[in-house]
Amino acid sequence: MNFERLLASRTDAMGASAIREILKVVSQPDMISLAGGIPAPESFPLEIINELVTNVIEKYSSAAFQYDQTEGFMPLRQTLAAYLQEKDIQASTDQVLIASGSQGVLDAIGMVLISKGDRVAVEAPTYLGALQAFNPYEPEYVCMETDENGLIPRSLDEVLQTGAIKFIYLVPTFQNPTGRTIPIERRQEIAAIIRKYNALLVEDDPYSALRFRGTDLAAIKTLAPEHVVYVSTLSKVFAPGLRIGFCVAPDLIRKWLVIVKQGVDLHTSTFNQALAAEYLSGGYLKRHLPKIIDLYKPKQEAMLGALEKYFPNEFRWSNPEGGMFLWAEGPKDLDMEKIYWKSVKKKVAFVPGKYFYTAKGEGIETMRLNFTMPDKTTIDHAIKILADVIKTEL
Amino acid sequence: MNFERLLASRTDAMGASAIREILKVVSQPDMISLAGGIPAPESFPLEIINELVTNVIEKYSSAAFQYDQTEGFMPLRQTLAAYLQEKDIQASTDQVLIASGSQGVLDAIGMVLISKGDRVAVEAPTYLGALQAFNPYEPEYVCMETDENGLIPRSLDEVLQTGAIKFIYLVPTFQNPTGRTIPIERRQEIAAIIRKYNALLVEDDPYSALRFRGTDLAAIKTLAPEHVVYVSTLSKVFAPGLRIGFCVAPDLIRKWLVIVKQGVDLHTSTFNQALAAEYLSGGYLKRHLPKIIDLYKPKQEAMLGALEKYFPNEFRWSNPEGGMFLWAEGPKDLDMEKIYWKSVKKKVAFVPGKYFYTAKGEGIETMRLNFTMPDKTTIDHAIKILADVIKTEL
Repeated sequence: MNFERLLASRTDAMGASAIREILKVVSQPDMISLAGGIPAPESFPLEIINELVTNVIEKYSSAAFQYDQTEGFMPLRQTLAAYLQEKDIQASTDQVLIASGSQGVLDAIGMVLISKGDRVAVEAPTYLGALQAFNPYEPEYVCMETDENGLIPRSLDEVLQTGAIKFIYLVPTFQNPTGRTIPIERRQEIAAIIRKYNALLVEDDPYSALRFRGTDLAAIKTLAPEHVVYVSTLSKVFAPGLRIGFCVAPDLIRKWLVIVKQGVDLHTSTFNQALAAEYLSGGYLKRHLPKIIDLYKPKQEAMLGALEKYFPNEFRWSNPEGGMFLWAEGPKDLDMEKIYWKSVKKKVAFVPGKYFYTAKGEGIETMRLNFTMPDKTTIDHAIKILADVIKTEL
Repeated sequence: MNFERLLASRTDAMGASAIREILKVVSQPDMISLAGGIPAPESFPLEIINELVTNVIEKYSSAAFQYDQTEGFMPLRQTLAAYLQEKDIQASTDQVLIASGSQGVLDAIGMVLISKGDRVAVEAPTYLGALQAFNPYEPEYVCMETDENGLIPRSLDEVLQTGAIKFIYLVPTFQNPTGRTIPIERRQEIAAIIRKYNALLVEDDPYSALRFRGTDLAAIKTLAPEHVVYVSTLSKVFAPGLRIGFCVAPDLIRKWLVIVKQGVDLHTSTFNQALAAEYLSGGYLKRHLPKIIDLYKPKQEAMLGALEKYFPNEFRWSNPEGGMFLWAEGPKDLDMEKIYWKSVKKKVAFVPGKYFYTAKGEGIETMRLNFTMPDKTTIDHAIKILADVIKTEL
């Protein structure tokens, strides 16, 4: 049966994903993957899951397994409101909306805001999962310039000057893919600019809790509360397999996010929300988070050390104070995809950076390196192999 | 801040939901609700959850909490393939796709297939959650006639004759809202018609396992395997709060469902999928399902008995062999919404049937009654109150 004729026109904008194709080899046996963006399994608090489950059943009984409100499980919304308060994000329980991963928030944002052809402003490079969430709604992307301090505010201003931008999408802290963080002065400038243009900013903040050094920075949400949809997740501080994301949005936007979420998945798993509520309110997160940081910090140091030791002088890379990624840039015109194919033959995978750009021809010489999955020795080994491959191409 | 100007044009098609408004009163204290469509909390196998969790951690360890494939957790797909085989639905493990509730399948179907203005054929009346899933993609609905045996095949044939129908959406067994089941002869006719027109049918089957009497009927999927997307869920036989749905679709459709699901929520909760895999493969479902049926069957009998006892002669109602709903029809032009407002004042809620029709003016005199939530005594009491209210309006 050929049902090609039945596909919605939006599928044209979603065709075969080049990155999906090239990453297929990553799952080959013996592959060392610096390509993923996934937490180390040792970071999950496996040892307390039974305790959490027992507490959840005791507290909520069958309510933890029943259909629930689209907005989210009330005890989780309550504890998240307090959690956000610690980050100076003011949100009442009613203003916290739970979704199925932050991916669920991003899809709902696309559904609520993007009509075909609408312009969405993104960093160059930007998070690929956000593009995947927005693409079915057929936006045009407008790129904003970045440097080692993330988004350049002047570029944001210029983009907003050009007229109708539906919203701006940013990952201000330990960005995926670059690991870069926007400093506080720029955050203030960005807040002032979006207020000036009365623009809507989607601030995606999955990584800020994974801080190894330095001090926490104010979320842009705290600087322009009425103009920001703040999006975060428990995937990096609890377990991604539970698919718990959340957001705090301006009232009208939140109202619509709830309406569309009802059609998309009714609500997020009640049981997992109850586990998350218990994890946060029972003090488990506070006790467990330092362990995750203690696990990742030395891995990052190992990768930074290995880059220093093995990578050619022509390269530079980010040195973030946390998160899960480093970003390395070779000399202009070095074809990092060619290096990718050579290095996977030697069983080391990463992501060629060009896939994180919406404009063709950008980022050819860049790469994203994840340091959370492999152990320190493997990281050193993998970076050495990569460096050897790179040297044959310089 | 007024962001009204930022809303996508599709929100026009989704405006304020009348049914959402009228059902707000259902959560009032002391309300007896025959309005819901939710399983009784006593039907959840709470007593085995700790055991399932222990088994899952033992078998899968951190993999149960990690990111996983968009297609679904392999052990669940395996056990579902065997489960479907028992229903004569042939699907390899690779052909089973897991989603976040059957709502997640329906949303993905809408995203893959519906371009604005595309025609989707639905029963009159039909399942509201499906319309909510499809509406953001802005289809036109084409109604097909039904009688006490569900969809009338002649009406399907006529609709397909009129030209481009993207797909047909049906709930053939214990339908929501009517409780009606399409008999085997009609299923064969429907299968022949969709083959004749080379049409695609979405067969939504959440309730067939809840059979109190009579014998199982072949899914239409078994009669026209290449033309049917078979959709089902564990919400009615395990726990809806876990949000586990699944489907078996023609290859091209499945490929696209996976692509769009990746953007919508990456994947469904790994932990819940692992619990579901254990529930099915460990024989728990087989042992537990009879208990759910033993719980619901007497409730349905209580409702049928009360209708017989209290409802006026001018009424008729469905007498399904399973499921969660009865459908009652009063004399033509009886305004069931008026009765709704009177009965909620007496603390009994139901759903006026007109909300399940896509065409205005239809089903004014109908009502959906759920029998799974209240106990038998409460059901008798509620039907008596309803009957009293109705009598004042006849």
